[in-house]
Amino acid sequence: MGTNGSIPKLSGQRGTYLRNTWYAAGWADELGETPQAKVFLEEPVALFRDGDGVAKAIGGRCPHRFAALGDGRVIEGALACPYHGLRFDGAGACVFNPHQGEAPPKVSLPAYPLIERYRLLWIWMGDAAKADPALIPDFAWLDDPAWEAVRGATLAEGHYELYTDNILDLSHANFVHPALVANAFTIGERKFWQDGERAYSRYTRENDYISPALAAVLGVEGRKQDYFGEVTWHAPANLFFDYRSGEPGTPVPEMKALLSLHAFTPETPDSTHYLWATARDYALGDTDFSEGLRSALAFAFEHEDLPIIRDAHRLMAGRDFWDMEPLVLSGDGGGIRARRLLQKMIKAEAGDA
Amino acid sequence: MGTNGSIPKLSGQRGTYLRNTWYAAGWADELGETPQAKVFLEEPVALFRDGDGVAKAIGGRCPHRFAALGDGRVIEGALACPYHGLRFDGAGACVFNPHQGEAPPKVSLPAYPLIERYRLLWIWMGDAAKADPALIPDFAWLDDPAWEAVRGATLAEGHYELYTDNILDLSHANFVHPALVANAFTIGERKFWQDGERAYSRYTRENDYISPALAAVLGVEGRKQDYFGEVTWHAPANLFFDYRSGEPGTPVPEMKALLSLHAFTPETPDSTHYLWATARDYALGDTDFSEGLRSALAFAFEHEDLPIIRDAHRLMAGRDFWDMEPLVLSGDGGGIRARRLLQKMIKAEAGDA
Amino acid sequence: MGTNGSIPKLSGQRGTYLRNTWYAAGWADELGETPQAKVFLEEPVALFRDGDGVAKAIGGRCPHRFAALGDGRVIEGALACPYHGLRFDGAGACVFNPHQGEAPPKVSLPAYPLIERYRLLWIWMGDAAKADPALIPDFAWLDDPAWEAVRGATLAEGHYELYTDNILDLSHANFVHPALVANAFTIGERKFWQDGERAYSRYTRENDYISPALAAVLGVEGRKQDYFGEVTWHAPANLFFDYRSGEPGTPVPEMKALLSLHAFTPETPDSTHYLWATARDYALGDTDFSEGLRSALAFAFEHEDLPIIRDAHRLMAGRDFWDMEPLVLSGDGGGIRARRLLQKMIKAEAGDA
Repeated sequence: MGTNGSIPKLSGQRGTYLRNTWYAAGWADELGETPQAKVFLEEPVALFRDGDGVAKAIGGRCPHRFAALGDGRVIEGALACPYHGLRFDGAGACVFNPHQGEAPPKVSLPAYPLIERYRLLWIWMGDAAKADPALIPDFAWLDDPAWEAVRGATLAEGHYELYTDNILDLSHANFVHPALVANAFTIGERKFWQDGERAYSRYTRENDYISPALAAVLGVEGRKQDYFGEVTWHAPANLFFDYRSGEPGTPVPEMKALLSLHAFTPETPDSTHYLWATARDYALGDTDFSEGLRSALAFAFEHEDLPIIRDAHRLMAGRDFWDMEPLVLSGDGGGIRARRLLQKMIKAEAGDA
Repeated sequence: MGTNGSIPKLSGQRGTYLRNTWYAAGWADELGETPQAKVFLEEPVALFRDGDGVAKAIGGRCPHRFAALGDGRVIEGALACPYHGLRFDGAGACVFNPHQGEAPPKVSLPAYPLIERYRLLWIWMGDAAKADPALIPDFAWLDDPAWEAVRGATLAEGHYELYTDNILDLSHANFVHPALVANAFTIGERKFWQDGERAYSRYTRENDYISPALAAVLGVEGRKQDYFGEVTWHAPANLFFDYRSGEPGTPVPEMKALLSLHAFTPETPDSTHYLWATARDYALGDTDFSEGLRSALAFAFEHEDLPIIRDAHRLMAGRDFWDMEPLVLSGDGGGIRARRLLQKMIKAEAGDA
Repeated sequence: MGTNGSIPKLSGQRGTYLRNTWYAAGWADELGETPQAKVFLEEPVALFRDGDGVAKAIGGRCPHRFAALGDGRVIEGALACPYHGLRFDGAGACVFNPHQGEAPPKVSLPAYPLIERYRLLWIWMGDAAKADPALIPDFAWLDDPAWEAVRGATLAEGHYELYTDNILDLSHANFVHPALVANAFTIGERKFWQDGERAYSRYTRENDYISPALAAVLGVEGRKQDYFGEVTWHAPANLFFDYRSGEPGTPVPEMKALLSLHAFTPETPDSTHYLWATARDYALGDTDFSEGLRSALAFAFEHEDLPIIRDAHRLMAGRDFWDMEPLVLSGDGGGIRARRLLQKMIKAEAGDA
């Protein structure tokens, strides 16, 4: 816990969120013996591993004196409050009261369905009865030994949908990321579409230069390649970027690939948990290669994307995106579809309730 | 004055406070020739010593251009505004106008009764006519040469009543302060009561181990002792902790004692001035002993208690304590009594007005 | 762009400003090839130089995804958004869309009249049709080769009118700036008046000591001088300070002069862009002299004035100046006139609209 702690300054609930859905709650291996105090959708959540090592998520505010439970520790499989030691199990029930043999009070905290899958923790902030693990989007490559991933996590200032927009409009690379500039984004073929509750952006370009950084990573500096890049948006804000390239004429499935995750989970209307990973199925075990890739991507996301999105967020000054009548460009086909789908899903969910 | 100054960012008055009472305004010896700018109960206050060295407290905002008077200096016994030099005496009257022989304007600032007692400054933020020094709680040991005290002062994020709760429920030591764990808190005998406008928590335990840190301080490592700990709450938030222990069978008055003050004075609804001291009547003049004790206590209060209470405060998100329906445990007998007494006193005072 | 960026956290418009007027937007030579993102009167503004090197000011929020345009770069004379590369000319028109040959969208950003004069950029935040360059106050000495200026720029916490007050009441020097103390301010002759839309403060004193720092600068330590200091306020907050002194009996026009600019432009109701300069017509080219003068003035303005005004601003807690019923001293004749004139001008402008 840093000087300023893991709990942001909160006021009354300000945002509206899709609740019956899976949000990425963190990297599974970063949740070890030490619990975590986080805020998702303006709600405090405590993450911990129970006696069987199973990751659990329960309400993060102790009902006694409101301490952040995630700053506690696990004792006999239950999460002990860091303040007065009440213990809660993974179902949120108070199971132990250390005070004078007093019975555990009959209280329970919210228990959030939490699934460990693809090296991530996935949390369901809505009606637990509807929490179907089959709805978790497929990121199987993240724990497929054939793929080696570099990854990161950061807390980013700005509304999470601004971060979604960023990934669904890859043309920003040509302006924001000097190392990732590619003709594919500006004069390549683009396609934006939706399919059920998913939105897509695809960029293809035959026989042209790919970006300088990718050419270096793939060892094809100065050689024209075929380029394929497809982003899939899973509501509310989990994105898959399937990048492939190869010698001109190579069929897409035979191209060399870099698969990426960009998962955004709102902390508050002004801040977003950002989890990212990029995997390859070559140069496995090459730690220099991995570190070079990781640091380049961390720089791109945290020092190139983030300041721009943070300032855009500040310039919105708390106003609604649509109320600001944003200019829609042809390249926004992915982002706008995702925003409209999410809006519809949030409305439908409110109608349900 | 640090980079960010001594004045917090204020908005309109947000809290409700007991006004006809004594608050601890600081350590007397820290107020020397240099005046101080502080905020108590969301009101700016200037503290200074007049020509006789008597500590005075007056409104801390100059009526001219609103400068923080406490950042000024004392000239001929009056506090000169740091901005344009108007001077105010300890009664708040403007006594000197340095501009062109102009008469002092007929304005007066609030003058807050201020008493220097027990090495502390005590301020009365209410009706001066009711400011009876006899109402200052008895902390005579703080300036009794038989007792040698270590002490500290810090500005702590969080509502002052959360800090009161902390001291009135000493069982938190077993979870928050590894060096202060004691069976007394969990299986000892407890008693919580009130008497007039005071609330009490008492913990006793016979023939058992006291905490590791206290055993080391007292030179009784590995030896069972009788334990006595009693907290007295004086409204609104001045607490006395009387700790004693000794060989089994020792009568309480003959035990070795550590007497502590924990005084909390609200700066704003979100921040609290925290003054503490702990005194002993042995190892007098042993500066190594003193420094070890002081640093251990400063660590416990500022690095163990404060982050937990700060996060609890943030998780309350500005809501009222009772509206949050806190779970009441058997160990809350002291804290709840203090909260109810204070609430009643604040209501009674409002009725008066 | 620093860690926290150039864009402050904004909420809905809170202040009321004079719009049909010239505000100082920055030092002209600090706007080179790199555009600037600033906020004036709570509005984002992008400053850049077009293909002819002419300084331009347009709305600083891209209409597409709200990025801060001033963080972009200039390409072929137009300002390219740092996020997706839309380009805007100095009239605010979108002139280039880099995406797939798509036509530039028919949008235009506000274009603010911007004049480069006296080494400053002057911006008009109101009705462009009324932006008469002749209304820019005369600071011709700033680019007169006969005068050599030292200067600075800082972002200062506090409302801009508090900064105006500071300059119009020079008597503060005797309390805030030990090096600038002078009898002129306390027992000299003062005159405060207004003339049309200007307000003035004048301080004169014959045959007395000038301040220690000025005496050193002018090489007259220990010698009595005649003193002349006149401040001219140009609405909304551009001030000229004409300081002169010389051997007793010297006519004012023949005295040695230090001419100063203090220009205040509101960023938000809580923060102010502060531009200052001081020029002399002697010791030209003496860089040691210049650096000594510059660092002394920067210290005085940024470390002596600013903390006092910041704390005064905080102690106003968002309340209106007049609602606080400020005490008016005889030395406030300049500041009060300026406040009343500005208030009247803002009212008149609102009536226009």
